[in-house]
Amino acid sequence: MIKMVRKNYLMTPGPAPVPIDILLAGAQDTIHHRTPQYLEIQKKALEGAKNLFQTSNDVMLMSSSGTGAMETAVSNLVNPGDKVIVINSGKFGERWLKLCKTFGANIVEEKLDWGVAIQPERLSALLKEHPDTKIVFTQLNETSTGGRQPVKELAAITRNTDTLIVVDAISGLLAMELKMDEWGVDVVITGVQKGFMMPPGVALISLNERAWKAVENCKTPRFYFDLRQYKKNYPDSPWTPPINLIYQLEKAVDMLLKEGIENIWARHELLAQATRAAVQALGLKLYAKDPGNVLTSVCMPENISSSKIIKMLRDDWGVVFADGQDDVKGKIARIAHLGYMSQFDIITAIAALEMGLAKFGYNVELGKGVRAAQEVFMKAGI
Amino acid sequence: MIKMVRKNYLMTPGPAPVPIDILLAGAQDTIHHRTPQYLEIQKKALEGAKNLFQTSNDVMLMSSSGTGAMETAVSNLVNPGDKVIVINSGKFGERWLKLCKTFGANIVEEKLDWGVAIQPERLSALLKEHPDTKIVFTQLNETSTGGRQPVKELAAITRNTDTLIVVDAISGLLAMELKMDEWGVDVVITGVQKGFMMPPGVALISLNERAWKAVENCKTPRFYFDLRQYKKNYPDSPWTPPINLIYQLEKAVDMLLKEGIENIWARHELLAQATRAAVQALGLKLYAKDPGNVLTSVCMPENISSSKIIKMLRDDWGVVFADGQDDVKGKIARIAHLGYMSQFDIITAIAALEMGLAKFGYNVELGKGVRAAQEVFMKAGI
Repeated sequence: MIKMVRKNYLMTPGPAPVPIDILLAGAQDTIHHRTPQYLEIQKKALEGAKNLFQTSNDVMLMSSSGTGAMETAVSNLVNPGDKVIVINSGKFGERWLKLCKTFGANIVEEKLDWGVAIQPERLSALLKEHPDTKIVFTQLNETSTGGRQPVKELAAITRNTDTLIVVDAISGLLAMELKMDEWGVDVVITGVQKGFMMPPGVALISLNERAWKAVENCKTPRFYFDLRQYKKNYPDSPWTPPINLIYQLEKAVDMLLKEGIENIWARHELLAQATRAAVQALGLKLYAKDPGNVLTSVCMPENISSSKIIKMLRDDWGVVFADGQDDVKGKIARIAHLGYMSQFDIITAIAALEMGLAKFGYNVELGKGVRAAQEVFMKAGI
Repeated sequence: MIKMVRKNYLMTPGPAPVPIDILLAGAQDTIHHRTPQYLEIQKKALEGAKNLFQTSNDVMLMSSSGTGAMETAVSNLVNPGDKVIVINSGKFGERWLKLCKTFGANIVEEKLDWGVAIQPERLSALLKEHPDTKIVFTQLNETSTGGRQPVKELAAITRNTDTLIVVDAISGLLAMELKMDEWGVDVVITGVQKGFMMPPGVALISLNERAWKAVENCKTPRFYFDLRQYKKNYPDSPWTPPINLIYQLEKAVDMLLKEGIENIWARHELLAQATRAAVQALGLKLYAKDPGNVLTSVCMPENISSSKIIKMLRDDWGVVFADGQDDVKGKIARIAHLGYMSQFDIITAIAALEMGLAKFGYNVELGKGVRAAQEVFMKAGI
């Protein structure tokens, strides 16, 4: 049988594709980090990142995955016994829960079906019931489902109270609108292996003034992730930063600023629209009731295991989707349209899905999903 | 208007896509070329290239474009006044003509319509008419049209005569079957920016024993391209070799040998089949009457300028096709499926062509060409 070359079509919600210019930015001489030469690079990256967070607050970096930034938020804000509301609509909502439990919070869990957004009124009601709530933890985009939470509306509620809102925007930042200052979001965290188009290894966090007050008053023991250390050293790092990744961060921020935040948001919205239209044209159902723009989670036809089709697409063709997690493992495919993606990446994803489904016996009209995506792009003037 | 990220989808018949592993192979420390360390690398590359030429003769490299190798062939084989037959079915047939003229050959031009293959009997007749012909010059693939010449059949004729056959396989090698020794081809040349998946800058040439005899007897003045110097120094170079490109050549040869020549040929054949099926499904006509597997030249609909559509695809979407040359400039698009290409590159090319045609007012059913390509791939068990 003829074998095709197997390229790397990374359509997972992190890591996401890394442009060669960013890859190469990492292949520079490793200089020492306690030097003015290095500090200038890190400062430029962090100052530029403010625009991407839509904030005038400092953005700080840590040498960690996104989960490290989640722990940073919890360990710097939550005292044992503090009441917190955790909006849980998926795997990463659960991670907030686990972290809050680890650090001894008094948790009010708002459990939603996976992929479902909370109604803002519901948060108002919860806060009425629990006026002593110190923090609300939520996601901009829930990576396990592709579902969104209405962060703007939630922050509009919390900003007029003494309750802080902490947003996990690890996969969501850049792919979806988030205006930290304008909306009154208190803490935003992200990881760079998503919309920042980088290899993993750096997390970013930004806090507004009232969040910093909570940090100062927090008694929870922490060391590596102690934000007071990061603040004291800003824009320098308290511990050794991942030097070559910061070269890449500087390059990534530069590329993103050149594209412009408004276009980045609109581009992701369009990529998401095209993907949703395409899979629906193939007769497939969307899994998330309230989808965001990071990824499209697609229900597989009844008799087809998403795990098997995802394995074949990955191993044979190099097209990498993510499987569902927990209860929906084997049932959904998560197709990311995140970061360095063009219309042709969507077409590749959909064409691969079509051929994969056909291989697994699903009655698919080849090219039909592709056409639906093409129509969305053309209607948008692309 | 929303702007997509503009990636580089290089679908031209040279340069062709360069895999990142080959790019990075060039980013190694530049060592001195008159060292055993360097020589080992060059030797490995050249010895490996023999299999790709399907020859046990030495393959030599020069620091030049493909045209340099064409001049090498002519200036080392043709004495002023020597009779040569030039099979001319396009721009690169014309280049053989120009070179032969430059070096004073007595030229018998076999002028064919662009994109048309010679009938082997016609060569027999020509040789009967001109039994003193010293060399036949032809192309494996004519890059200007995507048309092929029947090299196997032509060599079957020349090998039983005193006439040599010199094949410009610059774009054709690897994309199309060529068995130098088995077929009795006397001289094969190529450039690395095609099937070898490299940036330009290196040309390769191989000669069999009877061609070497002609080189020894050739009185034409030449210096840089004097093959006697290359032979004397093999596997070393007479002049400074393009060191970092040779690192890439070693890597490219390694990757190609791992894929295997039979699969490389079959893969290109399948990519070509899918492309031809796709453009025909869109109601477009193939330009070359006898197409090879390097590229598909497609006639644009009557009122659509290929130059304009190619410009838009390139500048707006990063999808780079080649325009026609000379008389067919503005009339055809040349879509290459050459080198480091997978089924999804073809799908990208076709989807882009569909959307481009629709933008220029051609009544195209979006997705129809893509489907035709998908069907070819699936039928082949991909």
